[in-house]
Amino acid sequence: MSFKPIEFINDTLILIDQRYVPVKEDYVHVSNLKECHEAIKVMVTRGAPLIGFTTIFGMALWVKNNPDFNQSDLDKAVDFIKTARPTAVNLSYEADRCRDLLISPENKNEGYKRLVEFGRSEIAKLEKDNTYMAQLALEDLDRRLGKKKYRVLTHCNTGKLACGCLGTALGVISYMNSEDRIEHVYADETRPYLQGSRLTAFELGQEDIPHEIVVEGAASYLMEHGLVDAIFVGADRIVANGDTANKIGTATLAIVANYYNVPMYTVAPSSSFDLSLKSGDKIEIEMRDENEILNYKDTQIAPKNSRAMNPSFDVTPGKLLTGIVCEKGLISNHTEKLISW
Amino acid sequence: MSFKPIEFINDTLILIDQRYVPVKEDYVHVSNLKECHEAIKVMVTRGAPLIGFTTIFGMALWVKNNPDFNQSDLDKAVDFIKTARPTAVNLSYEADRCRDLLISPENKNEGYKRLVEFGRSEIAKLEKDNTYMAQLALEDLDRRLGKKKYRVLTHCNTGKLACGCLGTALGVISYMNSEDRIEHVYADETRPYLQGSRLTAFELGQEDIPHEIVVEGAASYLMEHGLVDAIFVGADRIVANGDTANKIGTATLAIVANYYNVPMYTVAPSSSFDLSLKSGDKIEIEMRDENEILNYKDTQIAPKNSRAMNPSFDVTPGKLLTGIVCEKGLISNHTEKLISW
Repeated sequence: MSFKPIEFINDTLILIDQRYVPVKEDYVHVSNLKECHEAIKVMVTRGAPLIGFTTIFGMALWVKNNPDFNQSDLDKAVDFIKTARPTAVNLSYEADRCRDLLISPENKNEGYKRLVEFGRSEIAKLEKDNTYMAQLALEDLDRRLGKKKYRVLTHCNTGKLACGCLGTALGVISYMNSEDRIEHVYADETRPYLQGSRLTAFELGQEDIPHEIVVEGAASYLMEHGLVDAIFVGADRIVANGDTANKIGTATLAIVANYYNVPMYTVAPSSSFDLSLKSGDKIEIEMRDENEILNYKDTQIAPKNSRAMNPSFDVTPGKLLTGIVCEKGLISNHTEKLISW
Repeated sequence: MSFKPIEFINDTLILIDQRYVPVKEDYVHVSNLKECHEAIKVMVTRGAPLIGFTTIFGMALWVKNNPDFNQSDLDKAVDFIKTARPTAVNLSYEADRCRDLLISPENKNEGYKRLVEFGRSEIAKLEKDNTYMAQLALEDLDRRLGKKKYRVLTHCNTGKLACGCLGTALGVISYMNSEDRIEHVYADETRPYLQGSRLTAFELGQEDIPHEIVVEGAASYLMEHGLVDAIFVGADRIVANGDTANKIGTATLAIVANYYNVPMYTVAPSSSFDLSLKSGDKIEIEMRDENEILNYKDTQIAPKNSRAMNPSFDVTPGKLLTGIVCEKGLISNHTEKLISW
């Protein structure tokens, strides 16, 4: 029985509290915009699509609690929710879409109902897109390997806890499992923030998918021993030559996969494509706080006078990828060889 | 000012307590064989060479405290110290050498003095060997790259805390630094046991060598950005075709280094060679406790119902190594290309 990362029932938004996953499975009940703001701000919920859906339902609750709002009230509410995580593009985007929907005269008197419908239809749309991407990925893998069941590896977390519904790379795995096509999953622990150990392993466990967590360094060991049939990863940005920016460790994994000739797919929505950049070396890489490496939560690991370098992403050369899957289709040369872009 | 992992002063063996490095720099004072047994057993001290030296000084203290020993007493003492870590080959080997030395008639009356001299000469011999290996490695690197100062990367811990003196791969870095040939060191944190973050970073800090800790997944990022001139790693076993078993992550690193054409050297004593095995696939790989991955010390990371696979070593294909350095010489084809074995 699978958990639900987001639900809207009886005028209440119910969110799994991701701060405590996987140690505790707690749910936060949100009944007004202030509580919604708090849930996004303190990271009860995270992941671009999930923050977007949360925003829509939060605005719906605001309309319910303020049925006689005027334009100024609406602007204030939209501005307020945007401050929950100022850099989250999806939050801002969905808040603006909610405003546009509410100021349309035909929706004015049915704002609450319209926004709840809007949130539900957005989730359903993403679920449909994710499912289609999973089908495309599995079809391509079948064409290449033609196995009954697959042993797959994934990196970071790209499932329900990020997307609210099926997910991208982990969505492929979840879909394959629902079709009884998964033999085993290896989940990279994904240092330094351990999204694999904490979130991906939790999702796999919730769906009873047989899995083991491995350290990133074990990539060569696993593939040398023939334990991995295919690799699925997500992407934060995909540029014109197929280079993809994704969680640190993805490019290292792709080089090892290429060495052992293991197919590796990037699975990401078309909104991740940035064709204004010709190659991956133009992508700016975020450097994160070194304390993610030097300490584990409040416990010191490294010497006090040591520093760490913590790049959050790396760039996988497009030529190392077997395919890039988005909701518009699969980019691949459909041969047994690596693709050329 | 560098720390001393082992010293013998005023009839006392002084060991840095590695259980608390790098959070605390504590020293344990050992004045008899029982305390020596305890220090090895609870892992105050670790690393094959360092356990060997500790054993010799422990036996010296036993002779000092039991000057009128007979053969039976000696056998009991040797058997006792061997139980401190039953699988440590070096412990057993050095304990037997101490017995052989003590039963020689010429040493009988000067046993204490002879064993202390023996311990000191063994450390001096290893220091000389390690220094020679470091010189060979630097010479080869200079021949290939000819830079004034190098930015190097290392994996796991192969320095003073393992060897008692200079060390192997980290010994090369320490030697290069003493010759003012190091610009920067990247230390892999070395999941799951974090020997890099805890021990290597401590040693680098003690010697004021500029360094940053990185996650293993950052290998591609670092080399793509041209931040690494060369890589030095140790080896637990080297077989006839040059394949080497070393800490998990080493083979993954070697594949990435080969992709970016970054020279990578294995530095290990000739005692690590096992020429009875033709290739690395014959090496048995130790599987360690999954809790090293699932928890950090007593803190839960992963879901309770998730498993982890924790292979402790991997096998680096010999063809990916630029050179193998031991105290007998450097195995390399002396070209800019990868060696063929």
